This record gives sequence, C-alpha cells and structure tokens, in this order.
Amino acid sequence: MALLVQKFGGSSVADAEHMRNVADYVARVRRRGDQPVVVVSAMGKETDDLLHLASQVSKTLPGREMDMLITAGERKAMALFCMALHDLGVPADSFTGSQAGMVTNNEHTKAKIVEVRPQRILDALAKGRVPVVGGAQGVSVDREITFLGRGGSDTTAVALAKALGADACELYTDVPGVFSADPRVVPGARRLAKVSYEEMLEMNAAGCPKPAMRSVEFARTHRVRLHVRSSFTWEPGTWIVEEGSVMEQPIISAVVSDQSEAKVTVTGVPDRPGIAAKLFRALADRLVNVDMIEQNISLEGKTDISFTVDRDELAIAEDVATGLAGEIGASEVLADPDIATVSIIGAGMRTHPGVSATMFEVLATEGINIEMISTSTIRLTCVVRAGAADRAVIALHKAFGLEG
Amino acid sequence: MALLVQKFGGSSVADAEHMRNVADYVARVRRRGDQPVVVVSAMGKETDDLLHLASQVSKTLPGREMDMLITAGERKAMALFCMALHDLGVPADSFTGSQAGMVTNNEHTKAKIVEVRPQRILDALAKGRVPVVGGAQGVSVDREITFLGRGGSDTTAVALAKALGADACELYTDVPGVFSADPRVVPGARRLAKVSYEEMLEMNAAGCPKPAMRSVEFARTHRVRLHVRSSFTWEPGTWIVEEGSVMEQPIISAVVSDQSEAKVTVTGVPDRPGIAAKLFRALADRLVNVDMIEQNISLEGKTDISFTVDRDELAIAEDVATGLAGEIGASEVLADPDIATVSIIGAGMRTHPGVSATMFEVLATEGINIEMISTSTIRLTCVVRAGAADRAVIALHKAFGLEG
Repeated sequence: MALLVQKFGGSSVADAEHMRNVADYVARVRRRGDQPVVVVSAMGKETDDLLHLASQVSKTLPGREMDMLITAGERKAMALFCMALHDLGVPADSFTGSQAGMVTNNEHTKAKIVEVRPQRILDALAKGRVPVVGGAQGVSVDREITFLGRGGSDTTAVALAKALGADACELYTDVPGVFSADPRVVPGARRLAKVSYEEMLEMNAAGCPKPAMRSVEFARTHRVRLHVRSSFTWEPGTWIVEEGSVMEQPIISAVVSDQSEAKVTVTGVPDRPGIAAKLFRALADRLVNVDMIEQNISLEGKTDISFTVDRDELAIAEDVATGLAGEIGASEVLADPDIATVSIIGAGMRTHPGVSATMFEVLATEGINIEMISTSTIRLTCVVRAGAADRAVIALHKAFGLEG
Repeated sequence: MALLVQKFGGSSVADAEHMRNVADYVARVRRRGDQPVVVVSAMGKETDDLLHLASQVSKTLPGREMDMLITAGERKAMALFCMALHDLGVPADSFTGSQAGMVTNNEHTKAKIVEVRPQRILDALAKGRVPVVGGAQGVSVDREITFLGRGGSDTTAVALAKALGADACELYTDVPGVFSADPRVVPGARRLAKVSYEEMLEMNAAGCPKPAMRSVEFARTHRVRLHVRSSFTWEPGTWIVEEGSVMEQPIISAVVSDQSEAKVTVTGVPDRPGIAAKLFRALADRLVNVDMIEQNISLEGKTDISFTVDRDELAIAEDVATGLAGEIGASEVLADPDIATVSIIGAGMRTHPGVSATMFEVLATEGINIEMISTSTIRLTCVVRAGAADRAVIALHKAFGLEG
C-alpha cells in the first residue's frame, strides 16, 4: 500500500466531466489498495478569470485581498471534487490550505511555506477518508489567508508529500510527461522515463514550463520522488529523481527552446568598475528579471553588454538602459524582441567533453548564427534568431541521437 | 458617530461597476464620520451558479462540501469589495465567517449561529479599518466551514450588529424598502417608513420575501434596529422596529399577495380522532411544508380537509393524500394549483374590530370568491382564484386607505 499525493492541475478538473473522470481514477487508486491524498488547482482558467475580475474592480490590487479572492478558486474545485468522490462511494473531505496546516510567511500573492502541520490530513487518512486539499494556499503565522502564487499547487503537493512521508508525489497535468523536445516541433521527440531534479530545473529555466520550478527545488531539497504524468491518458509519465538513480544516463536528455525572451544590447560602454553593477541594479529596481548576461572583451576602453529579459519587460528594460546609457556615456541601446533561446540539457554533459563543440557545429551546418551563449554544468544555451529556433531544435535533437 | 452594520445583497454587488458604486457609498459613510461594518452576499446569481455546478458534478451533494463550495461566493465578493475600498483610499480588511467569529452548529447547508466572537472585527475597527465580512458563513464548533442557508447574509448582519452593539443594521437591496403593496400591482402603493418586527414576519409569511425571516426573528429577539433600503437610489427605506415605536399605527400596513402555493382538498374524510394527525404526519415525513389548513364541520360523520403547500410540492402532497385517502376511506383528493393567497397585515388589527368584515365585503363587491381563510392576530389571509389576486389586492389597498 503506497501513500500517494496526487496533484491535479486546472486542465484536469476544468469542468464537471473532467472532474468526474479524475474522481473515478482516484477511486480506482483507492480500490487497488493505495492511499491517495489529492491536491487540486482551480478549475480551468478560473484563476485568470478571478484576476480579470479584480482588475475590473481595482487598480491597487491589495495583496491580502487578492489572496482571499484567488484562493476561492481552489476552494470551489476541492469541494466539487469531494462531491464527485462521494458519488462514487468514496468518503472524502476537502481541506483549505489553512485546515491542511500549510503555514506560510506573510508575503501575500507569493507566500512561502514555513511549516506543514498535517494533523487533520492524518486524522482523515486514519479514518479511511480521502483528503482533498486546495492547492497553492496557506495560512500565515498572523492567521491571514495566503496564496503561494501561480503554480503553487505543485508546491503544496510536494510539501504535503514530504510532511506525510508519502511514497511519491504525482503531478497530473495535460501532457504525458517530460519530452526530449517539444513534440509539436520534433515529431520524433521521446517521453523521458526519468530525469534528474537538476535537469528538470535547467529545463524549466530554459523555458519548459512544467512542473513549477519551486516545487522541483523543494522536492530536490527534501528528496520527494516526483512523477509528472497525464490525467488524460493515465499512462506512466516522467519520474523526477536523484541523479544517481537515472540509469544509463544519456549525454543529453532534452533540447528546449524558448521564444518568450528579448535581447537588449548597450554598445560603447566605458569599461570601468561598477558600470555593470549600476545597470543591473537599476533593472532590479524596476523589477525586471534578467536571464542571460554577456559582456564582450574591451576594445579601446569600451565594451558591449547584452542581456535577455522577458519579452513583456523589454520596454521597461530599454527605458532603464537608455536612461543609464546617457548618464555613463555609452553609445547606443539596441532592443531586439526577435530572438529565441535554444538549450541542450543533460547531466551527462559534466563527464562528456565536446558537447558544446557538437552543438556549435550543428548550428553552423544549419547556417544558424549564434548571438549569445550561456552555460551551466548541465546546460548549454544559445541565442538565435526567433525564426531559426525550430530548425535548430530539430537538428540538435537528431544530432544528439534523442529520437525514439 | 454611529456604528452601522451595512449588508449588501447579491444585486448590490452583482458586477464590478455595482461594487465600485457601493464602495464609494461606504467611503462616504465613513467620511461623514460613521463607522461602517460591511457584510456582503455572493455577487448576483453566483450562489445559483455554484449550485448548478455542484448538480453537474454530483447527485449526492454532501453537506460539508456544499458549504465549502458555496461560501466561495461570498469570499470572492468580500475580497473584491475590499479592493474597491482600497482604491478609494479606505483601509479595509475582508473576513470569512470563521475569521469574523461567527460560530455555528454543525448543521451543514443551514447552520445556526450559536455565538459571535467578533474580536478580529473589533481589532480592525480600533485600527480605523473597515471590516468586510462574508455573509451567510461561519465555522462550526468542530472547525468545519458552514453555510447559514439562502438569505443567511441578513442573519450574519443582524448577529454581527447585536454582537458589536451597532446603532443599526442596514440591509441594502434592490428595492427601496417595504411597500403597502407590490408597486407593480398597485401603482399607488406607498413605501412604509416603519413596520414592526411582527408585521414584517407576517408579510414574509404571506409571500413578501425581504428580508430573510430568520434575520427579522433574530433582530426582534435581540432588539436590533433594522433598516431595509436601496443600494440603487440610496434614499431612506423602511425601518423595522418594535411595535410601540411605530407612531400613529395605521390599522392595516400592507396588502400582500402570494401565487406560489397550491391547494389540496381531501373530501369525505371520516370524522374520527387521529385522521388529521395521520395526514399531516405523512406530509411532514415527505418534507412537505404545509401553510394553511382548514377543516369543515362534520356532516353525517364525514368532513373535508383542505390545505395549502408550495406549488412545487403539490405532486408529492397529492401523492401522500391519495395514498392515505384509500387507507382511511375518504372520497377523493382534489389538487388545485390555480390559487393565490391575499393577505392584509397590520398591528392595528388587534385593537380594531371589523377588519375581517371589511375585507370580506370588499372581495364580495369585486365578485371574488373566498375559498379558504386563515388568521393571526395581525394578519388575515384569504385564498382566491389566482386570476383574481391582483384585483383583490388593488381593491383592498384602496378600501383600507393605503394610497400615498
């Protein structure tokens, strides 16, 4: 008998029919002898709808009230989910984040879990009932309702799995797992049976959005075994596990592309200490999230600095950079929204030299120009023209032998 | 400076625009120096929408989960309302029923308030903040979320007004107050400046649906001054107060008609002790709500029994009566959905004889046949054909001099 925390995302419980399907599955899990603890997100696009409603009512959007509002979404979903279970003869009780003992700090709209006190969940389990917990919510030490932020349901599930000593934490979503590349771009892309926490984090950072990064970090820290899988096909998905447990580690696990970023270049920057600090402090003050940074070698006391930001923040970043360029005597600011990042990710990269050379050769053969390069120990990312991204992904996927 | 509990119904906060309008009003109340404590219902038809969603997911509709679901409606409304207040520079905090200290029994879907512990509301007031409380919700002594039932927001408001020692409890709705008759039927109908708790209760019983009967009973018991008024015109509405405080009490305050009932007659019932008890016990067992009951005098050991029920329950009532008729040897069962009740209500009736005679004369003059009669000390109700109800109301309104 396994104790399984099973998290169902918004698309898995989008409407009454999906909800009944998922409840039927949980009932089967219980019948086969396992002990499910369910975590649900808000139904479908409900969180977006609530945010839209808030924006119609208010321009200030106070955090405490935003959290009160948004947590209503998971509350609806968890109550309805329990009803569906009751109809199948499965005794079940819904629990708010507060009732489930998810104690957080007081940082509204993006609270962090500080402790889990799962007494009511344990009581429910002891009585043979299925606990259904509202995702992404908690109660602060000041007894305020808090929201963990978008994707917070994954974090709820992982934290609960840790607190309950669950055998696994299953994150059900609308895709069957983690793939060696986006199957829409690369028809031969394979579902990966296992990836390491580190690889998953790098894929996240490189634009593959599932599951939420925070939850993977939490799972890695607390050694919670994650299983990303589909609530539409129900077939086994991808396990996210410790690196050593991934057998026959391939050199490269996946090729990931991200078109959500944009590039800013400041040319002719005086090469003096403190200039870069000034620029990136100014960007941080405007809450611009900087991803890649590249500084060329200095020629005649001048250098160029390029960085990437979310495309949505390009206008702010350009504004900040232009303001600073005048102040420090730089030549000009170039804003370029038309880029993509292409990354290869694999823990095997650590022990296999020559991976970067292969990547650059493949792109050269395809006639694709590399505009920026960034690396971690298990990831290699190139910035290319947006229009060349799919071609780059297909060629790299093939070159590294990732086809199914 | 008056401490005012102000309850806004679903139509008052139906959408973003209404919500901002109401928030603007509360801001003005505060600026003029009064201390508002706000209670909100769910927005517009949201409670109905949630019930519909539940019925799509579940046939069993377990009470605990229904309460968890439905209270999400007020939660949304109260958070949005606070946001609207913040935008106007008014510091405000929303509170769930649980946070507001509304302690109830454990009767899900229709919980009763057993105690109010308004410490967090008092704290908010002491800090100069406007508390905004979710209506119709509480927490049971077992720490479960509870719903007070439809119309429960009125009860929340009255209970809170009592617990806080508020100067008044204002129930804002989409009508400007209580009228001497339905203005759609009687163009000359007047808004009543004051009615007594008892009159309001009789009007409720006679089909006038605002405010919720429970809240009026609670207000009467605890001497909370109620003010029913409009959030659309903002003009003063109707005060519901102790009988003695209504000056120059008219004989009749209002004429009310109700077309939601139906009549069942069992003819040729053997006139033996216990027969009526058997019938109405059987109806109660099927949860049929019986309103009026009339039994004719006995002729040759046989009598006729008539009673009225909600029209929705007519089929069940007929079924019960038919089953019993065979058993006890009654002649036949007549089910009649085509009736209406017409009532005159007034505390002055107690001290003015001849009111009933006047009512019967007016109906006779109009050629309207009276099919059943029922009375309380301050109400007189006649059952007539449904088609004659409006004519009866117009004639009685005129005959008792209720025009504006």
